[in-house]
Amino acid sequence: MTTQLIECVPNFSEGRRDKVIEEIVTPFRQRKGCALLDYRADKDHNRLVVSLVGEPDAIQEALLDAAKVAISRIDLRHHKGSHPRIGAVDVIPFVPLQDITMEACVELAHNFGRRYHQETGIPVYFYEEAAMKPERRNLEVIRRGQYEALKKEVMSQDRHPDIGKPQLHPSAGATVIGARRFLIAFNVNLGTEDVHVARKIAKAVRASSGGLGHVKCIGLSLKERGLAQVSVNVVDYEKNALYRILELIRMEAKKWGVQVKETEIYGMIPAAALLHSVSYYMQIAEFDPNQVIELRLLQMLRDNQE
Amino acid sequence: MTTQLIECVPNFSEGRRDKVIEEIVTPFRQRKGCALLDYRADKDHNRLVVSLVGEPDAIQEALLDAAKVAISRIDLRHHKGSHPRIGAVDVIPFVPLQDITMEACVELAHNFGRRYHQETGIPVYFYEEAAMKPERRNLEVIRRGQYEALKKEVMSQDRHPDIGKPQLHPSAGATVIGARRFLIAFNVNLGTEDVHVARKIAKAVRASSGGLGHVKCIGLSLKERGLAQVSVNVVDYEKNALYRILELIRMEAKKWGVQVKETEIYGMIPAAALLHSVSYYMQIAEFDPNQVIELRLLQMLRDNQE
Repeated sequence: MTTQLIECVPNFSEGRRDKVIEEIVTPFRQRKGCALLDYRADKDHNRLVVSLVGEPDAIQEALLDAAKVAISRIDLRHHKGSHPRIGAVDVIPFVPLQDITMEACVELAHNFGRRYHQETGIPVYFYEEAAMKPERRNLEVIRRGQYEALKKEVMSQDRHPDIGKPQLHPSAGATVIGARRFLIAFNVNLGTEDVHVARKIAKAVRASSGGLGHVKCIGLSLKERGLAQVSVNVVDYEKNALYRILELIRMEAKKWGVQVKETEIYGMIPAAALLHSVSYYMQIAEFDPNQVIELRLLQMLRDNQE
Repeated sequence: MTTQLIECVPNFSEGRRDKVIEEIVTPFRQRKGCALLDYRADKDHNRLVVSLVGEPDAIQEALLDAAKVAISRIDLRHHKGSHPRIGAVDVIPFVPLQDITMEACVELAHNFGRRYHQETGIPVYFYEEAAMKPERRNLEVIRRGQYEALKKEVMSQDRHPDIGKPQLHPSAGATVIGARRFLIAFNVNLGTEDVHVARKIAKAVRASSGGLGHVKCIGLSLKERGLAQVSVNVVDYEKNALYRILELIRMEAKKWGVQVKETEIYGMIPAAALLHSVSYYMQIAEFDPNQVIELRLLQMLRDNQE
């Protein structure tokens, strides 16, 4: 029997203070059964994105420890950053990876949400597959107006949290917990400082304004780096591959006489997503992922474990 | 302690008779410690390329069994194909993969060569890192004029085999055995039947005529498929990445008004080679292979084994 594996990508609202960032990730390093795959802090976003892979129980315990650190060290009343957020612990998605269904991840999200609220007092919203109201499948709906607006609007019935009283935690806000498919975070940095260009491109590309399905994106200004960015979330990379999204962005950028300066893969990515794109650019016919040595060795090691 | 792992890519001169191909690969399926990763027969080349990964001892035993099948079933006096060859068992390279040095693979090639000759009577040439004469590092030098020419020229001193009498085996020719770095076989199929275009492009691209270092290539006619092919061997993929080779071929092809129709990765490829190229085409900055979930999981599984 193989082990149940999930991915979890908690987002914390701290991207600038290195010491606090290290304090937050420490519980993920220390817990057996939880592997800290990656963590990246962005000063402009003022946000920390952590990638974990491991067993569901170990990940939940580590998450509670890390969340308590974040809640004690982050105060949203004084937090500024280019990425929207409503909480010190902003979003916690659970992603099925191996021998676990999406339904099981939804149940996991609900159980974890209840325990998280009991132990921290922070109100909880459920999103994506774990949403309890259909409109809350969409993270943007929950996060509309961010912490500053939600602080007032939380009293109105349609913005009540799914768990907890209709009142934000003064310094730590609220937390969005859910279950979803594997999401690729992909940033496209433009050769311009003009955020309006990034916003125009984002509008042309994203599903919500009629662009590519399963693609979310926004235009951001990265002031420290002096450039504008199209920040892309690929919700289903099997439906729209990275190369298609990037080529559409390159095409739209031309309209403004702007070039793509560079791109960034943020956090983890499945091998299949990269193979799709390299096969496109290199016109590789009938490429089989099993031709990649490391993927075959992984398969062999897993087979031997069973 | 981890296990010593080598790759081995034996090439057999049979690409058309499915039953014979299956007989040749059967020993690789049956031997514990030897994993048959891939095997591909090409009717135009009339050649079988097998990719193995495993422990040195297990691979050697399986090779001897497979070679004996090939020698009994292939007769070079009646063999035609577009790929150059001198033997029924044409080439056997050993490639260090894990916890084994190139020096150890050279020793392995020499010991295996002696045993192979003892058990089969086939003369042996050593090439690449295992070469005993400097000019024989180059496979093309050993294989010059193929079986048909070598049959006569083997008597002249400079073409004597490294092991065995200066006489080819009448039906099975000779075998080239060696140790080398990981080699990527990459075919670029052109939108033309004109083999002269493929040859002109190959000449522009390969190291031996002043093109890209660490790149070998030849132009071939694939009559069955009605197209010309630039068949590329990348001898050191870290020095010249696939994207650079492909883009140079695309550029040269334009001179003849020809487009690249498709490409093929033949046999196995290391993940790093694909990541280099996808990073180029997608302008991915500072991409870390550890961001690929499967590569991290493989690393974790290996660490746990130690």
